[in-house]
Amino acid sequence: MDDVTRPLAAFLVRTHYDDLPAKVRQEAVRTLVNWMGACLGGSREAPVAAAIAALGPISGGAQAGLVARPERCDVTTAALINGIAGHVLDFDDTHPNTLIHPSTTVLPVLLALAELKPFDGKTFLAALSLGIETSCRIGNAVSPAHYRRGWHITGTAGVFGATAAAGKVLALSEQQMVWALGLAASQPVGLREALGSMAKGFNAGRAASNGLTAAFLASRNFETSPRMIESDTGWAQATTGVRDLHAVTDGLGDRYEAALNTYKPFACGLVLHAAITAVLRAREMSRIDAGQITHVDAQVHPMALEVANKTAPADGYEGKLSLPHAVAVALITGAAGDKEFRTAAVKDPQVVALRGRVTAQANAGLKPDQARVTIALEDGRRVEAFAAHALGSASVPMSDQQLDRKFTALADEVLPSAKSAKVLSLCRGVAGLENTAQLIAATWPD
Amino acid sequence: MDDVTRPLAAFLVRTHYDDLPAKVRQEAVRTLVNWMGACLGGSREAPVAAAIAALGPISGGAQAGLVARPERCDVTTAALINGIAGHVLDFDDTHPNTLIHPSTTVLPVLLALAELKPFDGKTFLAALSLGIETSCRIGNAVSPAHYRRGWHITGTAGVFGATAAAGKVLALSEQQMVWALGLAASQPVGLREALGSMAKGFNAGRAASNGLTAAFLASRNFETSPRMIESDTGWAQATTGVRDLHAVTDGLGDRYEAALNTYKPFACGLVLHAAITAVLRAREMSRIDAGQITHVDAQVHPMALEVANKTAPADGYEGKLSLPHAVAVALITGAAGDKEFRTAAVKDPQVVALRGRVTAQANAGLKPDQARVTIALEDGRRVEAFAAHALGSASVPMSDQQLDRKFTALADEVLPSAKSAKVLSLCRGVAGLENTAQLIAATWPD
Repeated sequence: MDDVTRPLAAFLVRTHYDDLPAKVRQEAVRTLVNWMGACLGGSREAPVAAAIAALGPISGGAQAGLVARPERCDVTTAALINGIAGHVLDFDDTHPNTLIHPSTTVLPVLLALAELKPFDGKTFLAALSLGIETSCRIGNAVSPAHYRRGWHITGTAGVFGATAAAGKVLALSEQQMVWALGLAASQPVGLREALGSMAKGFNAGRAASNGLTAAFLASRNFETSPRMIESDTGWAQATTGVRDLHAVTDGLGDRYEAALNTYKPFACGLVLHAAITAVLRAREMSRIDAGQITHVDAQVHPMALEVANKTAPADGYEGKLSLPHAVAVALITGAAGDKEFRTAAVKDPQVVALRGRVTAQANAGLKPDQARVTIALEDGRRVEAFAAHALGSASVPMSDQQLDRKFTALADEVLPSAKSAKVLSLCRGVAGLENTAQLIAATWPD
Repeated sequence: MDDVTRPLAAFLVRTHYDDLPAKVRQEAVRTLVNWMGACLGGSREAPVAAAIAALGPISGGAQAGLVARPERCDVTTAALINGIAGHVLDFDDTHPNTLIHPSTTVLPVLLALAELKPFDGKTFLAALSLGIETSCRIGNAVSPAHYRRGWHITGTAGVFGATAAAGKVLALSEQQMVWALGLAASQPVGLREALGSMAKGFNAGRAASNGLTAAFLASRNFETSPRMIESDTGWAQATTGVRDLHAVTDGLGDRYEAALNTYKPFACGLVLHAAITAVLRAREMSRIDAGQITHVDAQVHPMALEVANKTAPADGYEGKLSLPHAVAVALITGAAGDKEFRTAAVKDPQVVALRGRVTAQANAGLKPDQARVTIALEDGRRVEAFAAHALGSASVPMSDQQLDRKFTALADEVLPSAKSAKVLSLCRGVAGLENTAQLIAATWPD
């Protein structure tokens, strides 16, 4: 098999902010805005509190902070916990082809490193873009077989992005970057079985901290094989049984996967967004009294049911992977934001009742961002709506203004609005920052 | 598929030192003696120094020490580095059916926890035995397919043992143990591609630290699915494609895999031990002048060549996985200890010359602990020897006295002999210790 680890490492080492296309730089800023909002919103969640309670006492250091929280810990623990916070609401960015949430393993690494040894905004954006590029290219090469085998690709491919970003900030040599990627390959994190539990966020956070560990070890010449990704006894073969990895290196530097990142208008699994879009369209088309609905039929791409067909979700985390819940709550409220995927909404009797009248069908004729809903009402009416592209997908991306509004809605739940506006402004202006440690510092309680 | 995570967790929680058969307790002590010697011998190796240099600065705490070294760090980093030290010489214990080195992910966890919150020797031995039991049972269920896929099973199954041991010391409830094992399943470490490099030891150390992290998170009720090992989107399926996991739970508490642990007389991959045994037998049978050897033919079990057929090893780490080197160095020196697998021995011109005259053949008619060597000499003689069981295998186990001698040979290279004797005495008497933090403390420089 052709080398992929070394050409990828060489690309990562030689590419700097000035080499990135404008679209990639812009997307990196949008990714930061979106993730920071999601992380602020997630910073009060139970898994974050549990992780702090568990790991605080075995983290001796106080090198790095947590988003919107007073605690400090060592950099790898900080990355782990911020990764949990960033992913827990399932409101972070998504690379559509792989379903990787690429920034949530990368940004916690950059926030932690910025505190350890400050660096500027252009370095930050370059490392973020290259980290995303790394995860998504490796993910492309093993998709969809990798996810089908049971891996939670956000963690298993995301560890490479975390490592690439850390290695970029640490200014690793090409050989060191080869070793760092090899140590990342040794540490894939995450199984799909964890989806719908606290441990979904853990997979993101642990991948982030593994990337830091890999890059620091490589910086001191901790060696491994130069073909850890591509060898017959390496990562792609062991995790997925895949040998053809040309997608990792084809067009490196010419085409950017990082330019294809998308942001969620809805606080749930991406595979549910088309169905929600169709529901919202139906509500726009016709007055629908949720109490009058006798039945809802949702036709979706098969992947949506494979990933997210929890018919009786027990809490908010399971609700994020429940097609019946997403359809029901959107029909009743006309929304599908953070609030609609909280445990209270999942247990709301009206939602529970309507959920029981939703059936879902896999339709291989639909694309992943398409869905059709048919709503039958007591008065005999049938309302049908088709979503040709889910809101927030590559064809209907969220605008900057929509992203800012999403950020503010999440951040204002956690921060005073002046502080929330300050964080947004720093994220939007990250390219001009001399010291990116300001980003996280602006989120801390006074 | 039947549940395995919960029955395993229940067994771990309910089983205590007094429940363990005498043979298991004895083997735990032998395992400790053997591993501590290997770890002392490994404590000066380059990967240990590189890891300390890399991770020391990002480990803020000073909770736990390193074997035979003055540095201190947080408990997870200490476990990682002691795991590297314990495995780097490839001289630790081996579970023959799986090729797992089971104690090297477990003992670093126990040494670190003993410093955090002291516990007694019986707790130590119970946690060690149950940790080994856990890794080896899970390993049995996925062997040999798991290793064949490219996983370094010491790390990928070893993380479960580390977790079980940590969970035992932390006195997790059954539910918490279920979550801990689930968080372990999320974090398999290690690819076979790393064998022959520094990163082989990393796999062991990282699995140890992952186990600590998993158990601490579970102790604070960080939840995950209760079927992370056995589900269709869980560990066994994702890593190996295996559904039948009855080997994990069959005869739990009746039969102990931990009673089957073996110890290496030779400082290299276990799969080479039969060939070395045959070579030593040939030397006993006939006077063989290495300079007169024209050719050596080694017939071995196919696994030996699959794992360890590096024909031109570059350093000591590769030498440990080189059948030609093992045969050549044993023929020349009559030994195969630590010294014979150092880089100096691998580069010795006489060894290199003889290595070039060794050919190896896979013979499926041989058992894994069998080998046959045929040595052709310039005077026309042919010396043939057969090893029916490798020295150190289950049929010819190392005696306590041999283990003590092995310990002393390794420890005396690193510690003053009075200190080395003290450590050995503490290990031998571990069952009577009130505070097992003494074990590692006895290895520290004055």
